[in-house]
This record gives sequence, C-alpha cells and structure tokens, in this order.
Amino acid sequence: MSTVLLIGTGAAGAVVTQKMAQLPNIFSRIHIANRSWEKCQRLAEQCKGAVTPHQVNADYDHEVVSLIEKTQAELVINMALPYQDLSIMRACIQTQTHYLDTANYEPKEEAKFSYSWQWDLDQAFKSAHCMALLGCGFDPGVTNAFCAYAKQHLFDEIETIDIVDCNDGAHEHPFATNFNPEIDIREITQRGRYYANGKWIETEPLSESKEIDFPQIGSRKAYLMYHEELESLVKHLPEIKRIRFWMTFSETYLNHLKVLQNVNMTSIEPIMYDGKEIVPLQFLKEVLPSPASLGQSYQGKTCIGCIIKGRQNGRDKQIVIYNICDHQNAFQELNAQAVSYTTGVPAMVGAKQVLTGAWMQHGTVNIEQLDPMPFLKDLANHGLPWHVEDQS
Amino acid sequence: MSTVLLIGTGAAGAVVTQKMAQLPNIFSRIHIANRSWEKCQRLAEQCKGAVTPHQVNADYDHEVVSLIEKTQAELVINMALPYQDLSIMRACIQTQTHYLDTANYEPKEEAKFSYSWQWDLDQAFKSAHCMALLGCGFDPGVTNAFCAYAKQHLFDEIETIDIVDCNDGAHEHPFATNFNPEIDIREITQRGRYYANGKWIETEPLSESKEIDFPQIGSRKAYLMYHEELESLVKHLPEIKRIRFWMTFSETYLNHLKVLQNVNMTSIEPIMYDGKEIVPLQFLKEVLPSPASLGQSYQGKTCIGCIIKGRQNGRDKQIVIYNICDHQNAFQELNAQAVSYTTGVPAMVGAKQVLTGAWMQHGTVNIEQLDPMPFLKDLANHGLPWHVEDQS
Repeated sequence: MSTVLLIGTGAAGAVVTQKMAQLPNIFSRIHIANRSWEKCQRLAEQCKGAVTPHQVNADYDHEVVSLIEKTQAELVINMALPYQDLSIMRACIQTQTHYLDTANYEPKEEAKFSYSWQWDLDQAFKSAHCMALLGCGFDPGVTNAFCAYAKQHLFDEIETIDIVDCNDGAHEHPFATNFNPEIDIREITQRGRYYANGKWIETEPLSESKEIDFPQIGSRKAYLMYHEELESLVKHLPEIKRIRFWMTFSETYLNHLKVLQNVNMTSIEPIMYDGKEIVPLQFLKEVLPSPASLGQSYQGKTCIGCIIKGRQNGRDKQIVIYNICDHQNAFQELNAQAVSYTTGVPAMVGAKQVLTGAWMQHGTVNIEQLDPMPFLKDLANHGLPWHVEDQS
Repeated sequence: MSTVLLIGTGAAGAVVTQKMAQLPNIFSRIHIANRSWEKCQRLAEQCKGAVTPHQVNADYDHEVVSLIEKTQAELVINMALPYQDLSIMRACIQTQTHYLDTANYEPKEEAKFSYSWQWDLDQAFKSAHCMALLGCGFDPGVTNAFCAYAKQHLFDEIETIDIVDCNDGAHEHPFATNFNPEIDIREITQRGRYYANGKWIETEPLSESKEIDFPQIGSRKAYLMYHEELESLVKHLPEIKRIRFWMTFSETYLNHLKVLQNVNMTSIEPIMYDGKEIVPLQFLKEVLPSPASLGQSYQGKTCIGCIIKGRQNGRDKQIVIYNICDHQNAFQELNAQAVSYTTGVPAMVGAKQVLTGAWMQHGTVNIEQLDPMPFLKDLANHGLPWHVEDQS
C-alpha cells in the first residue's frame, strides 16, 4: 500500500497517472497536482475517482512541502516543468520523501541541460535516507537502462553508443511539437554536443546529420543533438569511447523552426509588450497546438533505441536495442500520442520499482546505476516491449 | 503661412515630417503627434526644432479635437494606423479642418479594406466646408494620379489597368515587413480580388501570379492581390474593363509568411495569455524588425507603376508609367528605406497641393478625381521622378 503524489498533469503526466491507476495494488493512493486546477480536475474525472486532484505552484518549495505533508506521499513523481525540479527536490529532502523525474533541471533564463544542480543534492538525499531517481522517461530513462543491460548481458566491452530517436508519425497540423513546445524548442535550437575520446565536442545547432536505418521504419535522416543522458552515461560508463544522440526531423518541421527562429519567436529573452515583459517562446507555446491535442489524428510509429558497438568473446559486435510505439495504439489505450506514452510509461514503471523496493539506493541516482532487469521486464509488460537485433 | 498637424510618426510619418521641414514657406508651422511620446520627441530632435512634438491617442475623437484646437492646424495629415482613420476624420469635421491620409479605414477585428466608411463622411466634410483627401501615398495615391494622367493625356479610351508594385531591395534580416507588419500581413493574407467586365472576382490568397517585366529591374514574379485603389478607380473611371493589382514577393518572404500563418502567429483573433487577451499578429509585430530599422542595410530599388492598355487616335496602345526609388538614396537623404520614402513623399506633396489651393474640393476626394499635373510635377521635384514608356 503506497501513496504517491504526481506533480504536472500535462500530456506525459496524464499517461503516468492513467497507468498508475491501472495498478491499484502498487499505487494504492494517487494524488495529482497541477498549477491549473481545471486541467488537474479534468484528468481526475477521466480517471473516475481513482486519483485525488490538488492545485500547486511548484515554483515554491513551501507549496510542495505543504502538499506532501497533506497527502503523506512516499514518492513524488515530478512531471512538471524542468525549471521546477530543484524546488520539488528540496521539498522532498525537507519532508524525507522519495523523488522521481523524467527531465533534468534547466535554468529558465538559459537553455542549458546539466545534471550538476541535481547531483549537488546527492548528499542531502542520502542524509534524508531518500532516493532521487533522475531521468526516468524514455530518453533519458529507458535508453540508459538499454545501455546498462547491454553492458551486463551483451558486451564484454562497449566502445560506442548512438542513441537514436525517430518519430515517424504524422498529424493534421502543419507544425506542432510533441511535448511542451517551450522545452522542445529550447532543446532543438541549442548547440549540438557529443563525447569522443575523453572530450566533449560542440557543433552548430542541427549542423550534423546522417541517414540511420531504424528497425521497422526504414532509413531516416537524423540530426546530432545534445541530450541529457549523454552526461550521466559518460559519468557512469567511463569506458565508452564515443557517445552521440540523434533525432529525426522532417524538412517541413525544420523549415517551420528555422522561420520561427528567424523572426525571434523562439527567443527566451523577454520583450516588452504593452508595458509587460513577455518571453516570445512562451507566447509561441500558447498559439501552437498542445501536445495532448495531437493524439487523435496522429498516425505512424516512434522508434527509440541505442546502436551499440563493442566486443564480446574477443569478437567485434554491433547491436541495436529498441522499442516501437504506435501513435494510434497509444491513443486508443490512453488518449495519448506515442511521445507522451513513451515518456509516461517508464516513469510509472520506475515509480513501481521504487515503491516495491526493487530499486532503492539513497541519494541522486541515474537509471544506468541500477539493475535494468526488473525495470525492462515491467516495461515490456506495461505497453513498451523492446527488442535486441544483432547487426554484427 | 500654414499650420499642419501630422499624426503618426512611424517610418512613413517621419518621411512626411522631414520633407515638410524642407519647405518652411509652405509648411510654416509643423506639429507632430504620436501615441508614444518618446518616438515623437526623437523625430522632433532629428528635425532640429522645425517641428513641435505632442502626445495623442488617436483612437479617441476628443483627444484629436483638443490637439487640433491647441495647434490651430488647418490640415491634419493622418499617418497613424488605418483603424484610426474614422476618429481622426470625425475630429476634423468637428473642428472644420482639412484631412489627408495614405491608407483607407479598416476595422481592427477584420482584415477588410473598403472606402465605404470614409465615403460615408462625404456630406459631413462638405457641410464643414472641408476637404478629406483619401489615399495620398504611392499606391494608392501616385498610382491613381498616373491613371488620371493617362486618361487626360495618353489615351482616348482606357481598357485595362494593371498596377504593379515591385520591391527589388534586400536587407540584412531573414524576414521583415516594409511597413507596419500588422497592416502589411493583414493585407497580404487576405483573399485576392480584381475587377473585370463589371464584376468583382475573388481569388485565394496569393494563388495567382505572373512574370512582370519591371522597367530598370527586369522580370519578376508578382502576385495578384486586392489593393484599395481598385475600389476608387472602378468608381471614378467606370469605363475600364479590367483592373488588377500585382505585387512581388520573394520565395523566402512567402515561406516565412506561410509558416507564421501555419502556426497562427498572423491571426487577429486574440488568445488568452497569462490572463490577458493578446492578438498574435500584434505580438509578432513587436518581435519583427521595425520598418524604420531596415534602411541602413537596404540595397536595391523599388519600381511601382501602372501598365495601361487602351486606344488613342484609333490605334491600340500600351504604356507603363512608373517611378524607380533607390533604397540607399532614400536612406542617405532621410534615414528611410524606399517603401517609407515612396509613401511619405506623396503625402507631403498632396498636403502642399491642399495648402496652396492647387487642390481644393469639399467632401471626401480620391486622387484620381483631381488634376494630376501639379501633383505629378511636384512629385518629380521632391524626389520621385516618374517616366512613361510606350510599349505599343
């Protein structure tokens, strides 16, 4: 019997909530909270009384502390904005509550992805005898578990990892982002970055691309980007020689993005409008379709995984370990599109590991530091089957 | 000795002001007013004491009335937003003051161009013994005078008119509009419309295009658009069989526009942002470069004119009557780009005709209803020479 508090009822948060509600033996009391009370209440109604809605502004530690105390949650699942990671983590430390999130902290005024701020709270979580499970979505999250699994079971020595992320789906809108547009565009428009031979190498935004053969999808053009799991994997798998992250984008998507950048609509520098400061990117978010609204018309599949090269039993080896998720299937099950589904399901499965004790380690912990087996096994049982293909 | 009040010190308003300041014998007292006091004061400083700045919100008749009474202006030159035409006209009627503008009234909540609202004030201007000179920029304005000139001097019978507008200049920005972005985009994104054989024909926005050979520039792709002078020319030259308006746009410009439309940033429907209604197009205006800022880097020329077909002395005839304006020349003279220059100079020249009595007719008057000669002669003397090429 466990009580959880989920903060952030956006598209992915709604997936986590609905998935938890399917497992009342594990998640016996589910509280959900959001800045917008209407949105939270709507989700609670959708879950037919299985969850209790609350209102919270997660920018403020004290509001989160009050809500944790009120709900007596054992674990907080943070599906709010990355800006809010630290306030929620501090509230967990203060109340001695376990913590889980899917995206690393980033300061609001700068598009900068780094675990450093969260790792700085490692000792505080240890002192509170609590676990902070960082980055437990698909990527980061499942991709990290894929790497840990490959290290344990498929290789004697890993040399290179390419994390590859393809959304081959199409929807009715000329342009929309698949998760929070503000976070999505910040991520895509930043400089590329990868790790090779002990050094980090920076590239111009979206300046490097290559054709990648995605299982069950085919060859697609993917762009080199920086993505947060690179940082933790380099730290925890120090033997790897190179690790990169690739994501596919259509020409149409990139054209829309380029134009929006050209006219400064993706800027996070506030401008004065009618006597008030407004961040163009935040305004853009309001005119774009919400990620949750895409599900209905979304057709096609996502393929996310890791292409790993190394050696086993004295021989060169290359494998790809991946999941395929179908947009329409996700919509039929949970009214969600595949990008929200693939983020939300691993968060639920990770929370399950914490609550059942399969995963328990005090301090801040990234997925690759834990035994991947119980997590990957549950993942396959809860909607995200995965496959290993030997390409040697 | 005449006193004028100019309202609206944007890019084109600044051209009118500086041009008037060059003619102290005609414009002996120049008052300028704007909603933003800083902008108005800056222009006054630029004109080194030749003009007196004021603050006004031209949305309100009574504010304009007070300012007219305070300045004792004989003529109000309206270079403000088209939404404000009617309030300024009503203030002129109330104070028995002549009026001049460069763009017809359009309601704020709908991109609709029509003289009807202004023509409805004809009798009121007549009763006030005043003239309201409508559409005295380049197009409408000079193009109307070109048509009147062609009718008087070049043809026995005009059959078709194509008004052609090419901006062949290039500046450093990936995307910017040449005048108020809000008004510009409203104009371009509306449905096309032209007149043929007694009927108005509507087309999808930018759906019809053709290559037009622009004198001194060459062949350029131009798009059929609705433009306000079509309405008045059809009324005052009822003999013409067809009249159309064509404007050039680069592929890059249209791509940017298409994307901004796709993401709803050109919409004039307000959305809720942070508890306040904001019109996306008005927000977009704030992130785009201001038209006045383009001058420095603008290279190239504009060519605007009329291709007219008809008969003279029993023979078929085709002429093009046009002006060429160079962006860099305009910048060197007035710190302006050619699109502001070609709008502002005709407004000054029109104001000169009103104040000297060369043009005086009570009621609402469009340019083609007046003798084109004094206007076109002055135009050539004040920076906008024009040419007639016989293409028969």
